[in-house]
Amino acid sequence: MAFVTIREAKEGDCGNILRLIRELAEYEKLSDQVKISEEALRADGFGETPFYHCLVAEILSAPGEPQGPCVVGYGLYYFSYSTWKGRNIYLEDIYVKPEYRGQGIGSKIIKKVAEVALDKGCSQLRLAVLDWNKRAMDLYKALGAQDLTEAEGWHCFRFEGEAMRELAGK
Amino acid sequence: MAFVTIREAKEGDCGNILRLIRELAEYEKLSDQVKISEEALRADGFGETPFYHCLVAEILSAPGEPQGPCVVGYGLYYFSYSTWKGRNIYLEDIYVKPEYRGQGIGSKIIKKVAEVALDKGCSQLRLAVLDWNKRAMDLYKALGAQDLTEAEGWHCFRFEGEAMRELAGK
Repeated sequence: MAFVTIREAKEGDCGNILRLIRELAEYEKLSDQVKISEEALRADGFGETPFYHCLVAEILSAPGEPQGPCVVGYGLYYFSYSTWKGRNIYLEDIYVKPEYRGQGIGSKIIKKVAEVALDKGCSQLRLAVLDWNKRAMDLYKALGAQDLTEAEGWHCFRFEGEAMRELAGK
Repeated sequence: MAFVTIREAKEGDCGNILRLIRELAEYEKLSDQVKISEEALRADGFGETPFYHCLVAEILSAPGEPQGPCVVGYGLYYFSYSTWKGRNIYLEDIYVKPEYRGQGIGSKIIKKVAEVALDKGCSQLRLAVLDWNKRAMDLYKALGAQDLTEAEGWHCFRFEGEAMRELAGK
């Protein structure tokens, strides 16, 4: 029998996290967009001023079982800010490997992120979900989240690449 | 004749910024949601670990004109993280007082945010726009932004208040 634990990621987890990031992007049918490297994840998450924080879900084997600890999911977040409510947390990614779904691991990760948020004086936890990912949408709604695109009409916009350099005049 | 300058906000600007935050929320028809105080803005933006950064647009009077410097717009942002592309910037709010619109002040603010983003090694600038705010949507699209809700189906989700406390089991 295996046990799941949710813990803060360490720098040595970055290789595993990158593999899961790629799996998630494949699931989202957007894997061509993944340009990040393990080195960037190490530098940006574990330097003096971390640009993100990460939790990992780890399977621990029972005594006598041959398999060692194994990272099967992650939740990557950062602190953001609402000019209406103050500090909040943005959950950029949450992912559990398909063969470990249905055991509540995703819920455990998001609950732990909510705990961190409250401990840090945050009043909101935000995230973005693809409209065809009904399984995820239903889970977040069942957990009490509001779909702000549906309720208020918010659209996500992004500048990048050439558009961003042109904008900056560089 | 008046001159506009875009500069980093100082702690003493927080009163003016809060007035503009309230004006923006009224424009967005969501002013009942503003719960932030000037004290929170001071503590969260100007402590050791700032939760946000802010630019202000200031009108400077020409010599001999009686009116002193006056803050007429702001852009509030924080550093965020993409697991596909690494560091990026999220522009939480951008606002120019109605009587100063049409002079390119909004574009100047967003261009300056893009400059900061590139200087800090960010590859994306993200923001959210209300679907009925066609003026803003058209401006960002004209400047090269992509509407990801339209193009890829991203929806913004949020937990807050009781839902967040329940999620954290508190």
